Amino acid sequence: MSERSELRRYPNRGSHDPEVIHKILDEGFLAHVGFNVNGQPFVIPTLYGRAGDRLFLHGSAASRMLKELDRGLPACVNVAIVDALVLARSGFHSSINYRSVVAFGTAKKIRNDEDKAAALKTISEHVMPSRWREIRGPSEKELKATAVLEFAIEEASAKIRSGPPLDDEPDYELPVWAGLLPMKFSPGEPVADPRLPAAIEVPEYVQRYRRS
Amino acid sequence: MSERSELRRYPNRGSHDPEVIHKILDEGFLAHVGFNVNGQPFVIPTLYGRAGDRLFLHGSAASRMLKELDRGLPACVNVAIVDALVLARSGFHSSINYRSVVAFGTAKKIRNDEDKAAALKTISEHVMPSRWREIRGPSEKELKATAVLEFAIEEASAKIRSGPPLDDEPDYELPVWAGLLPMKFSPGEPVADPRLPAAIEVPEYVQRYRRS
Repeated sequence: MSERSELRRYPNRGSHDPEVIHKILDEGFLAHVGFNVNGQPFVIPTLYGRAGDRLFLHGSAASRMLKELDRGLPACVNVAIVDALVLARSGFHSSINYRSVVAFGTAKKIRNDEDKAAALKTISEHVMPSRWREIRGPSEKELKATAVLEFAIEEASAKIRSGPPLDDEPDYELPVWAGLLPMKFSPGEPVADPRLPAAIEVPEYVQRYRRS
Repeated sequence: MSERSELRRYPNRGSHDPEVIHKILDEGFLAHVGFNVNGQPFVIPTLYGRAGDRLFLHGSAASRMLKELDRGLPACVNVAIVDALVLARSGFHSSINYRSVVAFGTAKKIRNDEDKAAALKTISEHVMPSRWREIRGPSEKELKATAVLEFAIEEASAKIRSGPPLDDEPDYELPVWAGLLPMKFSPGEPVADPRLPAAIEVPEYVQRYRRS
């Protein structure tokens, strides 16, 4: 572990346990990828998939982010899940409950078409499990137009806050409501494509979709 | 507008309209902040508040992120809201509906206590409107222990995808369900702090909390 992934603040909330890290990465599906172009930081949100300690990112073959990352520059990926608003009796102790992973590493383009298609399947199954087998797979032309990057996690740490607000002792006497407002990222009712034949029903895996 | 916020991919989905940008920044509450330490990019999720073209970020006075940002380094902030999974008939056209803002600028610490308290109120009201007037405000000691940064947005762009999947013409004949699975980041039932007196009821502004 080097300094960049050292847990400085609230070390009691931090973890380097791969199991903890993988669980957060598997529940989230939007990663925020940080990289530099001529010293200017960029942060771009993107879908991803995971296989072991590798994350797969994809986009257009013309994407600036993927081109820059392919140069082997140091990159940083964050995946954060918000679980609740922590409503304390003071502003100072108000916070959120969350689970977050910061991962450092470098990325490179997958050049072999077979590996590329496998990585695309991993991303698809990460975002919507069971769907890949139903939809049309990538054509040769589509594979060519798509860049898929493998981001190798070199170091990662998780940060977690959970539990009720922790107020200063005298503040417990204040006549103000305190507690948690749980927040959930959850699906609504599926909306059929306007051009979908009426006979095609919503699949089970869409009906039952949950992230956690 | 310089090259860094030029909209390269899918320019039809992009916007530099401040009204569009502000609306996204006001609906989200978790920002991903990107900055460099010795050429290593970091991406850190954090709460924020907005006043005009300034974002306020806060944390411990000992926070590495806030210390580094205060050096006036170029930074990047992303706020992304996921609206739906776009389930197309091919992997290639599967996507998500989202609204995202990438903002570039520099940050500096607010040193005046009065401005600092005002910025903390802005963050609090951004995350949970109406709460600030009920809770205990920051003490002098707490203000000292808290760093509040003002991130001045120099350039920003929004990217938005909305609407149904757009498939290749021949794929519309595939016998696969296609459409949107709307996703929403919404509150569950409030959970009272274990030490809360039973007589204190959940406030209206917590009961009715919505992000959009």
